[in-house]
Amino acid sequence: MEQQPVVHFIGVLHCDIKKLDDAPKNFSESDRVGTLEIFPQYREGLDGIVAGQIIVVLFWLDKSSRDVLKVYPRGDRSRGLRGVFATRSPVRPNPIAISELKVLAVHGNRLEVSGLDILDATPIIDIKKKIGR
Amino acid sequence: MEQQPVVHFIGVLHCDIKKLDDAPKNFSESDRVGTLEIFPQYREGLDGIVAGQIIVVLFWLDKSSRDVLKVYPRGDRSRGLRGVFATRSPVRPNPIAISELKVLAVHGNRLEVSGLDILDATPIIDIKKKIGR
Repeated sequence: MEQQPVVHFIGVLHCDIKKLDDAPKNFSESDRVGTLEIFPQYREGLDGIVAGQIIVVLFWLDKSSRDVLKVYPRGDRSRGLRGVFATRSPVRPNPIAISELKVLAVHGNRLEVSGLDILDATPIIDIKKKIGR
Repeated sequence: MEQQPVVHFIGVLHCDIKKLDDAPKNFSESDRVGTLEIFPQYREGLDGIVAGQIIVVLFWLDKSSRDVLKVYPRGDRSRGLRGVFATRSPVRPNPIAISELKVLAVHGNRLEVSGLDILDATPIIDIKKKIGR
């Protein structure tokens, strides 16, 4: 355990989404593909992930503002301001995004995925098995 | 933006799950209730969350080991070791848990929820709207 809760980056995203206005609003509306590069020291944590499955991926949105608590959902001002915790806005005190991505292929420490709604070069902080309720 | 990616705790969980062997294996198997206390400086981020909805809650598992990459899923040794990123194990480089919880009531900065699989006194780091694929 650490004194300070510091996030460790386990990898980085490579994809062709280079600007926010080219990013799908969320994973459920995206078929964009890319590669999750997991750093070599974390590679064995991937054992058991196979092509065809859906994985839950957590990204650290290092370009996002952390000091905003109210937003216009999806930028739509007609619906009024809402608390960030009632939304999926990338703007929030801890700028963590959750995407559910389909694994297209596994090549060692690189996972080819589809469903991306995240900017190229964004750090990856976790991958989990998807479960339902 | 910060130089170091440090997580800020936005609140803390109160519930009667005091020991790991009393915790449900995950939220989809739990009807345990408790309270999410959000610290006052983050309260307005809750605006728009209402009773009856399902929210996605991220916890920082401050008691979890961070230096393990292989586990026996659910402690079952018959199935062999698996990479932590192919599981929902609390043991992982960034000890973040994701729970989908039902909001039973909202009282200012306190949310009564059901579906808990997390220990009492665990820090909360984010809340999001649930979306489907």
